[in-house]
Amino acid sequence: MIGKSDGAVDTVLARVDQDMDQARDRLFDLLRIPSISTQPLHEPDVQRAAEWLRDQLAGLGFKVAVKPTAGHPVVLGHYPGPAGTKAPRILFYGHYDVQPPDPLELWHSPPFDPQIVEGPHGPRLVARGAVDDKGQLMMVVEALRAWKEVGGGIPAPVTMLLEGEEEIGSPNLEPFLVANKKSLASDFALISDTNMWNIDTPGVTTRLRGMCNCEITLKGPALDLHSGLFGGSALNPINALTRILGDLHDDQGRIQLPGFYDAVRPISAEQLAEWQALGFDEKAFLNGIGLSAASGEAGLSGLQRIWGRPTADINGIWGGYTGSGSKTIIPAEASAKVSFRLVPDQDAQAIFEAFQRFVADRLPPGAQVSYQAFGMSPGMEIATDTPWVKAARAALEREYGRPAVMIGSGGSIPVVEQIKRTLDIDTLMMGFGLDDDQIHSPNEKFEMRCFHKGARSHAILLGKLAEH
Amino acid sequence: MIGKSDGAVDTVLARVDQDMDQARDRLFDLLRIPSISTQPLHEPDVQRAAEWLRDQLAGLGFKVAVKPTAGHPVVLGHYPGPAGTKAPRILFYGHYDVQPPDPLELWHSPPFDPQIVEGPHGPRLVARGAVDDKGQLMMVVEALRAWKEVGGGIPAPVTMLLEGEEEIGSPNLEPFLVANKKSLASDFALISDTNMWNIDTPGVTTRLRGMCNCEITLKGPALDLHSGLFGGSALNPINALTRILGDLHDDQGRIQLPGFYDAVRPISAEQLAEWQALGFDEKAFLNGIGLSAASGEAGLSGLQRIWGRPTADINGIWGGYTGSGSKTIIPAEASAKVSFRLVPDQDAQAIFEAFQRFVADRLPPGAQVSYQAFGMSPGMEIATDTPWVKAARAALEREYGRPAVMIGSGGSIPVVEQIKRTLDIDTLMMGFGLDDDQIHSPNEKFEMRCFHKGARSHAILLGKLAEH
Repeated sequence: MIGKSDGAVDTVLARVDQDMDQARDRLFDLLRIPSISTQPLHEPDVQRAAEWLRDQLAGLGFKVAVKPTAGHPVVLGHYPGPAGTKAPRILFYGHYDVQPPDPLELWHSPPFDPQIVEGPHGPRLVARGAVDDKGQLMMVVEALRAWKEVGGGIPAPVTMLLEGEEEIGSPNLEPFLVANKKSLASDFALISDTNMWNIDTPGVTTRLRGMCNCEITLKGPALDLHSGLFGGSALNPINALTRILGDLHDDQGRIQLPGFYDAVRPISAEQLAEWQALGFDEKAFLNGIGLSAASGEAGLSGLQRIWGRPTADINGIWGGYTGSGSKTIIPAEASAKVSFRLVPDQDAQAIFEAFQRFVADRLPPGAQVSYQAFGMSPGMEIATDTPWVKAARAALEREYGRPAVMIGSGGSIPVVEQIKRTLDIDTLMMGFGLDDDQIHSPNEKFEMRCFHKGARSHAILLGKLAEH
Repeated sequence: MIGKSDGAVDTVLARVDQDMDQARDRLFDLLRIPSISTQPLHEPDVQRAAEWLRDQLAGLGFKVAVKPTAGHPVVLGHYPGPAGTKAPRILFYGHYDVQPPDPLELWHSPPFDPQIVEGPHGPRLVARGAVDDKGQLMMVVEALRAWKEVGGGIPAPVTMLLEGEEEIGSPNLEPFLVANKKSLASDFALISDTNMWNIDTPGVTTRLRGMCNCEITLKGPALDLHSGLFGGSALNPINALTRILGDLHDDQGRIQLPGFYDAVRPISAEQLAEWQALGFDEKAFLNGIGLSAASGEAGLSGLQRIWGRPTADINGIWGGYTGSGSKTIIPAEASAKVSFRLVPDQDAQAIFEAFQRFVADRLPPGAQVSYQAFGMSPGMEIATDTPWVKAARAALEREYGRPAVMIGSGGSIPVVEQIKRTLDIDTLMMGFGLDDDQIHSPNEKFEMRCFHKGARSHAILLGKLAEH
């Protein structure tokens, strides 16, 4: 059943193919702007990246502006779609800011001088932001461009929401969503900031873990003490903190906060079977990062532990003397960063309170405890029976010649939950990154094959959505 | 029974009293030399302090030289004592180096510009090194001076051994003791680097704790990982380290290394009664350092826990992200400084091995552990039935009008054990510091009353020893 739309898609895809060198050059232009959101020195660069994207979207017929916020600006653009279209309105979210490139000495080429390097999967782009998220974002822009230029216009109404603060925790995004609720109203959100299953197997991410993230400080004596003159009488806050945090897990790797698992739903047999079918090789996964054995809850598969179960991790700890050699003190205090990754239905705030009770129950006399909360977000499970997920599956299967897999992610993408809460729409996460792309690390890369097929997949998706 | 010696002692004590202003000025001269042994910049100052002391001792009739070592020099001086004396030869050990004065901003006056400040016990000397150990050392020199000038000469043979590396762990002392064994041969050693029981009650320190001091590092993944993408599968070295170290003590505060207490002798009922009689107010002791309750082994008194029982303290811990805000990583490694204070008969090396076995028994699969050993010294118990301890008790009782108490110290003074091992003699520790002297801290002080009565007590001690 090859209809009119399929014909247009073929033309559009041919255009994507022909235009690939120019598309890469445009992405290189964006990658050359060091839009590091966390460094005040680079504020003009962040602004410049926003303006560069504004100009790109204006060229595609968007009504677009760089909107100021209390921090870095948001690029907001609207495209009406064909007159009288019944296609759903897409809210595309991406971010144009990047992580700092440090440590610079580990890069094989300057992080803001993008290079093409030959790899096992053919040429790859190497630069800070190559995949996270400038490359994935431009992949979508290129799909829109091909439709605009040879497909008779972009076939669906599209709103572009491009943020400049994702790498610093999006402090001004939610207020922006709330303030622009009407203008942002759409049928679903689309994000290209996730990974494929592997380079030959496309994926749609349908589960994310949430987060309860905090810092704990335990204070004992008013000053650092001589451990000989006071040891045996004075409270040692490091002894106390390790004793409390060392009790977070039981012998089976289960988290011991009372009530921690109460809201955790068992993974359905159907879901488990799907994950099982993916043939995840946890041993190879761990060998790749220098580990010989798995950790975590006993009796569960690797994917189940990462995608389907909550965790407790101490992300940092410090206290007392940490220089070279020895200084035998009982320190005045000790601190740790503690985060819990949560699954759907766990309440981050309730977990934070359970953690505080857990600590209070174990606090030795004379110790004082304080907390700093960093981020609380729930786990997310995205419905897969929506028209957009179906369209994405069809588009990916056409491009890759095999079905896309519905994957989870152990990570947290708070914007998905913010969009759900403020705009009341689901998010389709169709991403083309790979596990070895080294995001946030030196020599970040994006496979040209992923960039190319990602642009094609989005072009097909737009066509599928226009059929509705 | 006032004999000839008692008459000489009275004359000597009168001289000490008359000479106190000059004695203070001489100490000020020494305190003005910033002999900070750990800072290479101050090497000339350390040398200058050694030469200043050499000149002082030469003026008292010592045959004395500044002896080079692989690090800072030792001042070594010999005084023969009266012809045909039967008095024991005293080996006096002191140190002329000091700790760095940092943090400078917390000093009320420059650390190397000594001041007289009025305090609750009268005038006090404020300077780095005031009590540790320049003040205590000069107290002894002034006692020698008074005997030399008005007592008919120093009444006993004395060897002075003044070190410039105590504050950096005495790396060259033991080789010096071994190399100069013959020249250092004496009947007992005398050290003035400890505390009194309180300003009105003199003390002789007869117990010291030993030390097993090390650093442990636990490695997991080859690099820092994203705690979302890997959490639930990858080993977290901070989780693992806190779990292991959190297990060091049981619920009663006892240390759980197998065999840890095997060599620990119970404190005798007599000794316990003596400590009990001291009326130690642990609550007041802890309130002074900002703590409302005691820690440590259940069911024991404060002095028993500090003087008579071993401890395990984590002196420092670090790993992962320790900056402001949040970075949700599973770090590649985590480390801690761990020290055990030991009582007599515990073997430091055996404890170190027991700790390593304890860790190995709890090490999760995939983790790698390594250690760095810093210092191993046994606990010491000094015999109290020797002529010198008896002479010290008699001298202190004469000066203070009340018996001296036999006290312990929870700290470690490795030179005492080194002298025992290399020269086979006991050490008499008769010190005049107070708990609130702030050694190693800003505004270190020494009470003039302690300096004065300490010089008098040493003058009396010399007289008592000459009676033999």
